[in-house]
Amino acid sequence: MQALELNSGLQYRQDKPIPAVCGDEALIRVKLAGICATDLELVKGYAGFSGIIGHEFVGLVEAVGQEKHRHWLNKRVVGSINIGCGDCEDCQSDGPEHCSNRKVLGIRGHDGAFADYLRLPVGNLFLVPDQVPDEEAVFTEPLAAAVRVLKQLAPLPVKPVAVIGPGRLGLLIAKVLGLAGYDVEVLGRSANSLTLPKHWQLKAELILNVPANHYDYVVDASGQASGFSQALRIAKPRGTVVLKSTFAASEPLDLSKVVVGELHILGSRCGPFDEALVLLQQGNVPVTTMVDGRYSLKDGEVALRRAAQPGVRKILLQP
Amino acid sequence: MQALELNSGLQYRQDKPIPAVCGDEALIRVKLAGICATDLELVKGYAGFSGIIGHEFVGLVEAVGQEKHRHWLNKRVVGSINIGCGDCEDCQSDGPEHCSNRKVLGIRGHDGAFADYLRLPVGNLFLVPDQVPDEEAVFTEPLAAAVRVLKQLAPLPVKPVAVIGPGRLGLLIAKVLGLAGYDVEVLGRSANSLTLPKHWQLKAELILNVPANHYDYVVDASGQASGFSQALRIAKPRGTVVLKSTFAASEPLDLSKVVVGELHILGSRCGPFDEALVLLQQGNVPVTTMVDGRYSLKDGEVALRRAAQPGVRKILLQP
Ligand SMILES: [Zn+2]
Ligand SMILES: [Zn+2]
Ligand SMILES: [Zn+2]
Ligand SMILES: [Zn+2]
Repeated sequence: MQALELNSGLQYRQDKPIPAVCGDEALIRVKLAGICATDLELVKGYAGFSGIIGHEFVGLVEAVGQEKHRHWLNKRVVGSINIGCGDCEDCQSDGPEHCSNRKVLGIRGHDGAFADYLRLPVGNLFLVPDQVPDEEAVFTEPLAAAVRVLKQLAPLPVKPVAVIGPGRLGLLIAKVLGLAGYDVEVLGRSANSLTLPKHWQLKAELILNVPANHYDYVVDASGQASGFSQALRIAKPRGTVVLKSTFAASEPLDLSKVVVGELHILGSRCGPFDEALVLLQQGNVPVTTMVDGRYSLKDGEVALRRAAQPGVRKILLQP
Repeated sequence: MQALELNSGLQYRQDKPIPAVCGDEALIRVKLAGICATDLELVKGYAGFSGIIGHEFVGLVEAVGQEKHRHWLNKRVVGSINIGCGDCEDCQSDGPEHCSNRKVLGIRGHDGAFADYLRLPVGNLFLVPDQVPDEEAVFTEPLAAAVRVLKQLAPLPVKPVAVIGPGRLGLLIAKVLGLAGYDVEVLGRSANSLTLPKHWQLKAELILNVPANHYDYVVDASGQASGFSQALRIAKPRGTVVLKSTFAASEPLDLSKVVVGELHILGSRCGPFDEALVLLQQGNVPVTTMVDGRYSLKDGEVALRRAAQPGVRKILLQP
């Protein structure tokens, strides 16, 4: 089968074997996949992953490892990306997200979705409602990650939120929070980057225009150390900063505001697929307006380079 | 009067005027003062403060600005260090700690305690119980800061806590948490640094012996970027790291564990003086065993150099 494989460099291959499935696994033919910032980081060598990359996908179940899973056959599915050991304390209590032995689709110890086929445990699969086309379903994973922010803010009093970074993830986070009733402002570094947020009916502003100590809640989805520094700057004392994106530890970071302002920093990663699918079904998140290009798998390298360009949001890959 | 004044360099002076007090202020004759890490940072130029430094003290009220405050006269007091504007939203709700117009004794816009006299609003004063000698009362401010950590962890389930940094502040935090019933371990970089924690009946261990993902709660009181990195390393996924000390932003910091492990980082600063005084009165925090030297104000520079040496805990200054 075709695949984009990382192995000290990214390579398009046509000779990979279709994965064998057994036990609780399903074989899924990938219909559409999405490129995200993590993929770009992996290609740079972050986390030392080798194998097929890609973790945002929608596909069709073509085989299952056991008879009892037959009802999944020919179903259109998306899949959550963490595969826990199933036995440890974390798996038993909080689920697979924080299992120390977990594999992660296309990220850690498990081949991913930039291929004709992938395999996943059926426990990771979610049925895609008929009303949700592939072009939207492929956004389930990042949309779930956006919903995670909502879940983390939910126990706190409702207050205005700033989302730093009007890119792929920031836009989804801002929209999810807006739909949930939060007063949200998207903050970016250039006027250009604020066009789509405004199309999405979101308040948008240049971050340099925001005074210090201004927001109770700030979400950093910028993917850059400078974005996180801005988040600390604009957060009110005793405010909460949700850190949604990783960035290279290349520049020194001044964390004194965290102490002096007694800020809360909340790390935020994966979210609930079921709730993301409900949002897509309701049709209030115009995800397809975020698509800046669609490439075939064999043009994967070009697609990834395109996805890395400033201002480009979602690039899709089709086997 | 004598004072240690910072003004592009630290200077011992004998010609400073005794502060004039009016309104709600009291004039306090300093009996004993303590040097803390913040003083050392201020001398390095951190925060650009100029004026008399010092914020840990015990003293006697010698004058008040108004007749109605006469009952404070000749009282032995300690004083909280934040002086709010009194009018803003922060002052009215949370108190002066996070008022954006606040002054801070010996740190920001208000002369401090390394002097014969200081002035503070009577609202900042706390009566020292007779059973608490000056040598212990002078620890009220840092002990209150330690109690603040206890307050911040209190809403969470009780779980084992690691305190990184067996210095001045780390030791107080560990003891306060231990007295409150937490299973506490003090972590340091050298066997030497763990001697006093063990004398204090605290578990102590070399930080390099602690495996990754080991503690639900980690308090970083190391005052170093490397200590904070260790805190992230040893924190369990979804664990809480209390950041108690500021450090220079000189080396790049890898925050990816915050996101991947969905850690909570809680900044922590000043605490309740009344509760710290109760702890001192109960006599269960052997603070005086932490004193490594006592200097007169005119030897202030020597005293500050001594306080900056590795392994030295508390240095006291006497006018
Ligand atoms: Zn992703
Ligand atoms: Zn597990
Ligand atoms: Zn201090
Ligand atoms: Zn105020």
